[in-house]
Amino acid sequence: MTRFRRAAGKARRILRMVGWCLAIGAVVPSGGRAEEGMWTYDNFPSEQVAKKYGFKPDAAWLERVRLASLRLAGGCSGSFVSPNGLVMTNHHCAATCIEELSTAQQNYIESGFLARRPEAELKCPDVELNQLTAIEDVTERVKKATANLSGQQFSDAQKAEFARIEKACADATGLRCDVVNLYQGGLYNLYKYKRYQDVRLVFAPEFRIAFFGGDPDNFNFPRYDLDVTFLRAYDKSQPVKTEHYLPLSPTGPKAGELVFVSGSPGSTSRLFTVAQLEFLRDVVFPESLKRRAELRGVLTQFARQGPEQRRISQETLFGVENSFKAINGQQQALLDREFFGRKVAAEQKLRAAVARDPALERKYGKAWDEIALIEKRYETFYRPYLLVERGAAFNSKLFDIARTLVRAAQERPKPNEKRLREFRDSALPSLTQSLFSEAPIYGDLDEVTLTFSLTKLREYLGTDDPLVRQVLGKESPEEVARRLVQGTKLTNVALRKLLWEGGAAAVAASSDPMIRFAVAVDPAARALRLRYEREIEGPVNQNSELIAQALFAQTGTSVYPDATFSPRLSYGAVEGYEHNGRRVEPFTDMAGAFERATGKDPYALPPSWLAAKDRLNLATPFNFVTTNDIIGGNSGSPVIDSRAQAVGLIFDGNIHSLGGAFGFDAALNRAVAVDSRALIEALRAVYGAGALVDELQPKGRSAFTL
Amino acid sequence: MTRFRRAAGKARRILRMVGWCLAIGAVVPSGGRAEEGMWTYDNFPSEQVAKKYGFKPDAAWLERVRLASLRLAGGCSGSFVSPNGLVMTNHHCAATCIEELSTAQQNYIESGFLARRPEAELKCPDVELNQLTAIEDVTERVKKATANLSGQQFSDAQKAEFARIEKACADATGLRCDVVNLYQGGLYNLYKYKRYQDVRLVFAPEFRIAFFGGDPDNFNFPRYDLDVTFLRAYDKSQPVKTEHYLPLSPTGPKAGELVFVSGSPGSTSRLFTVAQLEFLRDVVFPESLKRRAELRGVLTQFARQGPEQRRISQETLFGVENSFKAINGQQQALLDREFFGRKVAAEQKLRAAVARDPALERKYGKAWDEIALIEKRYETFYRPYLLVERGAAFNSKLFDIARTLVRAAQERPKPNEKRLREFRDSALPSLTQSLFSEAPIYGDLDEVTLTFSLTKLREYLGTDDPLVRQVLGKESPEEVARRLVQGTKLTNVALRKLLWEGGAAAVAASSDPMIRFAVAVDPAARALRLRYEREIEGPVNQNSELIAQALFAQTGTSVYPDATFSPRLSYGAVEGYEHNGRRVEPFTDMAGAFERATGKDPYALPPSWLAAKDRLNLATPFNFVTTNDIIGGNSGSPVIDSRAQAVGLIFDGNIHSLGGAFGFDAALNRAVAVDSRALIEALRAVYGAGALVDELQPKGRSAFTL
Repeated sequence: MTRFRRAAGKARRILRMVGWCLAIGAVVPSGGRAEEGMWTYDNFPSEQVAKKYGFKPDAAWLERVRLASLRLAGGCSGSFVSPNGLVMTNHHCAATCIEELSTAQQNYIESGFLARRPEAELKCPDVELNQLTAIEDVTERVKKATANLSGQQFSDAQKAEFARIEKACADATGLRCDVVNLYQGGLYNLYKYKRYQDVRLVFAPEFRIAFFGGDPDNFNFPRYDLDVTFLRAYDKSQPVKTEHYLPLSPTGPKAGELVFVSGSPGSTSRLFTVAQLEFLRDVVFPESLKRRAELRGVLTQFARQGPEQRRISQETLFGVENSFKAINGQQQALLDREFFGRKVAAEQKLRAAVARDPALERKYGKAWDEIALIEKRYETFYRPYLLVERGAAFNSKLFDIARTLVRAAQERPKPNEKRLREFRDSALPSLTQSLFSEAPIYGDLDEVTLTFSLTKLREYLGTDDPLVRQVLGKESPEEVARRLVQGTKLTNVALRKLLWEGGAAAVAASSDPMIRFAVAVDPAARALRLRYEREIEGPVNQNSELIAQALFAQTGTSVYPDATFSPRLSYGAVEGYEHNGRRVEPFTDMAGAFERATGKDPYALPPSWLAAKDRLNLATPFNFVTTNDIIGGNSGSPVIDSRAQAVGLIFDGNIHSLGGAFGFDAALNRAVAVDSRALIEALRAVYGAGALVDELQPKGRSAFTL
Repeated sequence: MTRFRRAAGKARRILRMVGWCLAIGAVVPSGGRAEEGMWTYDNFPSEQVAKKYGFKPDAAWLERVRLASLRLAGGCSGSFVSPNGLVMTNHHCAATCIEELSTAQQNYIESGFLARRPEAELKCPDVELNQLTAIEDVTERVKKATANLSGQQFSDAQKAEFARIEKACADATGLRCDVVNLYQGGLYNLYKYKRYQDVRLVFAPEFRIAFFGGDPDNFNFPRYDLDVTFLRAYDKSQPVKTEHYLPLSPTGPKAGELVFVSGSPGSTSRLFTVAQLEFLRDVVFPESLKRRAELRGVLTQFARQGPEQRRISQETLFGVENSFKAINGQQQALLDREFFGRKVAAEQKLRAAVARDPALERKYGKAWDEIALIEKRYETFYRPYLLVERGAAFNSKLFDIARTLVRAAQERPKPNEKRLREFRDSALPSLTQSLFSEAPIYGDLDEVTLTFSLTKLREYLGTDDPLVRQVLGKESPEEVARRLVQGTKLTNVALRKLLWEGGAAAVAASSDPMIRFAVAVDPAARALRLRYEREIEGPVNQNSELIAQALFAQTGTSVYPDATFSPRLSYGAVEGYEHNGRRVEPFTDMAGAFERATGKDPYALPPSWLAAKDRLNLATPFNFVTTNDIIGGNSGSPVIDSRAQAVGLIFDGNIHSLGGAFGFDAALNRAVAVDSRALIEALRAVYGAGALVDELQPKGRSAFTL
C-alpha cells in the first residue's frame, strides 16, 4: 500500500531524527557499474549514457522529461501522462486520498474507483503536486551570509538566508521555492516548483490488485501488482493543459533496454560516517523496529475487531508494515559484516588520504572524531527527543493538529526567517492544506495510536520522569487518550480555522482538552528540539560539510549528491538478477497473477479480475525489474524510454534495494515497475476504461522525435 | 507477573535455540568483588565468605539450606517454610496455576486466594517441585563412554550414556535423576531430586499488589511488590512433613548484612565466544525482540476487547512482556561498546595465553575460529529452525499437545537412549503431568497466537517456500488457525490419553485436524532439528569444551560453572547502588506503595490494601536489594541469613542485572526481594491470615543454632 512512498516518508523522518536531512553529501560511484546515481537534472551524465547505450539525452529531451515529471509533496513521485493534466502515480501514493474519500458505505479502497465523466472526478483533500520549472544556483549568496561564522551562529545565519531567498522567490514568482543543499554544502540550489493543489481522483483499481501479495510480497520480486492511480491536476476548476507529458507506450520495454527513472528519491545516507552508521544500527533502528513491530501488532488485532475497524486502520497499518520492512532491510544491510566492512574501509581510505596532506589534515582531519563525539552526546537524549518531539511523539492526528495550532500561534507573528522551519511562508500552503483538510479523522483509531505512544513514553522514560508524571498524572495512558480524543472538538475544520486565525489569544482562551494538552507539553518538546538543533544538527552539518569537501576536492563534479527528495534522473536497463543461486527473470505476466491467487487476502484477486479472465490477454507482461538506482520517494516515478514514452511505473524496489540507503549494489539492487502494457490491458479489458486509454494514447500524437 | 521466572524460561529457550544450553563452561570471577558467582552446593567458597563476613557456612548449614530449597520444574525456585510442607515462591511463579484454577466467575488472579482450611487448598494442574537430595560425580563414566570419539559419534554416545545413567538411577531410587554438565564438560554430576507433583495452592495475593507497577516498573527499583504465593506439597493426600525448612524471620535483614540466595538460576553465557555473542546480538536477539514486540501488540489489543479476553490473555501477555524486557536488557548490554569490548579483550587474552604454549595451541587454538564458522553455517538455517521446530514454531497450546502426541507415538517404542531427549524415561513424569493437565485451554487465544506464528512463518520464509505452501495451501493463516483450533478435540484430556496409549496406530487413525497438521509438518521439523544437532549443537559443544578446558587448566576449582537451572547458592549483602548519579537506597517501605498508587493499573492497589491502610504499619520495609549474583530462574528463591532464616524472597533483578547473562557488574547488578517483615505484616493486617503467620513462625521453634 505504501511501499516506496512511506519508505521515503520514513527515511526522511528517520534522517531528520538523526539529524542529517537535506545535508548528506557527495557520493563516489562504487565500482564499475555506471547505473549507480540519482542525478540532478542540471548535471546528468549524458555522455556516459551515450557511451554505454548509444543514446545521448540532449537538453530538449531532459527539459521535456523534467517538466513532465511531478513530485507529490506528501512523499511520492508522478508524471503528466496526457495533455489534459492527467497524472500517473501509484495506488499507494494516492491511498490516503482514496481512503479519505471513502465511507463505511462506499469503500473505494475495496471497490476501486473510475470517473466516467469529468464531473465525477473527486477532489483529494490534501494532495499537492510540484513541477520543477527552474533551478538557480544560490551557492555564493548562502556562503556569503555564513562567512566567518561557526557553530550556532553559522546554523542560524544559514537558515535565515534560506528563508529570505525562498520568500523573495515565492513573492516574485508565486512558485514554491525551496533551497536545496546538495553535495553537503558544496552547492546550494534554489528549486522553483509550479504547485498544483486542486488534484482529483480519476481512476484507482481495487486495493487487492494494487497490492496483490500484500506485506509478504512487499519488497520482493516476482510481483503481480497494478499499483497505479490516475489523478488530474486542475486550475480554477479546469483541467490544466500540459504541454509536456509522457504518452503511455503500447509496446512496453524490452529486456536489456535502456530506461530512465524520473522522480524524487527521498533520502540516502551513502556518505554517513561509520559513527553515524553505528548510531543508526545500534540505537535508531533497533528502537524503531521494536516500536513499529508492536504498533503493527496492535493495529493488526484492531483491524480484526470488525469490518469498519479494518477499513479505517488499513492505510495506517500498511504504512507501519511498509516502514517496518524498509527499515528492517536497511538494518540487515548494516548488520551484514561484509557490507559494513566496506563502509569502514572506505572511510579509512579517505581519512588516510586526508592525513597524508598536512593542509587537508588541518582543515578536515578532526571531522570524523567530532561526529563520533556528537553521536555519543545525542544518545543521552535521543529517546526523549524521539518520544516527545519527533516521530514517536503523541501518535495522533488530532494531537498533530493541536500542536500545529499551538505553535502557529507562537510562530506566525515572528519574522519569517526566525520561525520554526515548518511555519516559514514557503511551507504554509502545504501546511494549511493539510491542517484544513476535510478528510475524516477516526477517533477510535486515534485513541489506539495515542494510547500506544503514551505507553511507550512511560516505558522508555520511566514512571518517575517529570514529563511522564506531568502527562499522565494519576491517569493511565488509555484514560488520557480517551479523555483527549473524545473531548476534543478539533475534528471540526471551522474550529481549526478559528484557532489559526485567532492566534495566541484564541489558543490561550481555548478549553479544548487536546489544545490544553499540546500547550502543556510544548515547553518540554521545544526545549528538546532546541537542544537537538544546537548540539546535534548544527555541529553534525558543519562536520559533514568538511568531510564532503574533502571528498569533493578529490572527485570534482563527476559525482551525484545524496537524495534529498528533490527531482532526479537515473538510468539503467531492464535486467533480472541472481538470488540464492536462482535466476530471477525480469518480467512477470498476467497469467502468473492467476496462478499465484489463492482467493484469500493478500492473494485474493478482485471480482473484476476474476470476471475478466477470459477477456484478458494473459501473456501481457505485468511487472518488471530494472537496474536503475532508486530509493523511497521514487514511488510513482515513470519508467521512460529514449523516445520519452512511459514504458512503466515504478512502485517498489526489491529487498536488496533497501541497503541502497547506504550503498548501491549493482548486482542485486533492482527497481520494480508496472509494465505500460499491463496498464493499458487492464484499463481496457478489466475496467472498460476505453476513454482513459484513449486519453493516454492520443491518436495522431507522435512520440518525441529523436 | 513472570519476571525472573520467564526470564529464566526465556533464557533457556534462547540458549537452546542457539545451541549451548547446559554446556556453557567455567567462568573466571571478573575483578575483585567476591559476590560474583552462582556456586554449586558441593563447591561453595565458605572460606571466602568467612574472610569477608566473619561467618563460615559449614556442611550442616549447607545441607540444611539445600534440603529446604526447591526447584519448580517449570522454571522457578522456592523453599520449604514450615514443617508441614508449606512452600514459598513468587506469585508470578505460580500464576499459571492460579489462572488455571480461575474461571470467568471466580478470578483468583484478580481477587487473590486464601485457603482457611486444609480442604480448601486447591491442587495445581501442573506444578512439580524438585528437592536436591544428593550429588554424585559421574565424570569418569561419561568420559569413558566417549573416549576416542568425535563429531556426531561423540554427541550420540554422550547422550546415550546420560540416558543410561539417569534411567538406572531413577529405576533404583524412584528419584528424578539428571546428569548435569558443569564447567563445560569439565565435570558431569548426577543430581538426584525428590519430586513432588501433588502441589496445592494455599495463598496468593491479588495480582495488583503482587505485580504493583506492572511492566513499567518490572526490572526496576525502587519497588513495592508482594510477589509471593504459598503452596503446599502433598504426598498420598497428606501434607508432607519437612524436616528441613526456613522459618520466616520477623526481623528481616539489615543494610550491609550478609545474605545468601539459594535457587536454580536458569542459564548464563559468561563464557560465550565473541562469535557467539555477535550471533546473539546481530541475529538472535533482533529477531526475537521484533517478534515479541509484535505479539505483545497483538495481545495488548486482544485484551482490550473485553474483560474475558483480558483475563484469559493476561498471563500470556505478561510472559511476552517480561521476556521482551529481559532480552532487551541483555541486548543493551551487548550493544554497549564498552561492555562488549571487555568480552573481546578477555577472549584475546585467553587466546594469546594459549598461543604462547605450542602444546595448548595444538589442542585448543582452533576452537574459537571453529565456533565462528559454525555460527555462519547456523545463520543459513536459523530462521526456519526457529519458526518450524523451536521457540517460534506454531505458537499454540493445542499444537504443542498434538506435536507431543505425534512424537510420543514415534519415540516411546525406541530404546530409552535413542529417543528425543524430552521423551526419555526421566522426562516422562513432567511431560505427562503437563500433557494430561486439566487446565483450561482458551481457543480464542490459541487462534490468535497460532495465526500470529503462521503469519511470521510466511513472512520470514516467504510465500514460495515449500513448507509455507504445504502449511497454508490456498488458505490464509487466520483460516488455517481457525480450522485447526475450532476443529480439534484435543481440549479433551481423555482423548489425549487415548492417543498417548494408542501410540502410532491411534495417531495414524486419528482424523483430528490438529493431529493431522502436526503429522504433516513433522518431517520438515525433525529434519531441521537433526541438522541443528549434527551441524551446530554437537560441534559447538565440542569446541566450547576445548575452550573451557583451556581456561579450566589455568584457574582450577576456584571458579563456578555457568548457570544450568540446577541448584546454586550465592552470597552477598543488602546494599543500594548509584545510578545516573543518583543514590538508590536498599529498602522501600509500605508507605511508598500508597504514595506511588494512582488508582489506575498498573499502579492500582487492590481494595484489600486500601481498606487495610489504617491497620498497616506503613513503616514496614517492603522490598530490598542485595548484591547477590542471580539470574532468571532464581525467581522465588529465599534470601537467607546466617541463622538459616528466610529474611526475604527474590522476585526480580534490576535492569543492570540483565547483562548478568554475559558478565557480572558488582557495582550495578542487584537482586530484588520482598522483605520477610512485609510478608508477615501483609498476611496479618491485610489478609487476616493469622494461621498462616503462625505456621510460618512456629512458637518454640528455635532458629538454626550457630
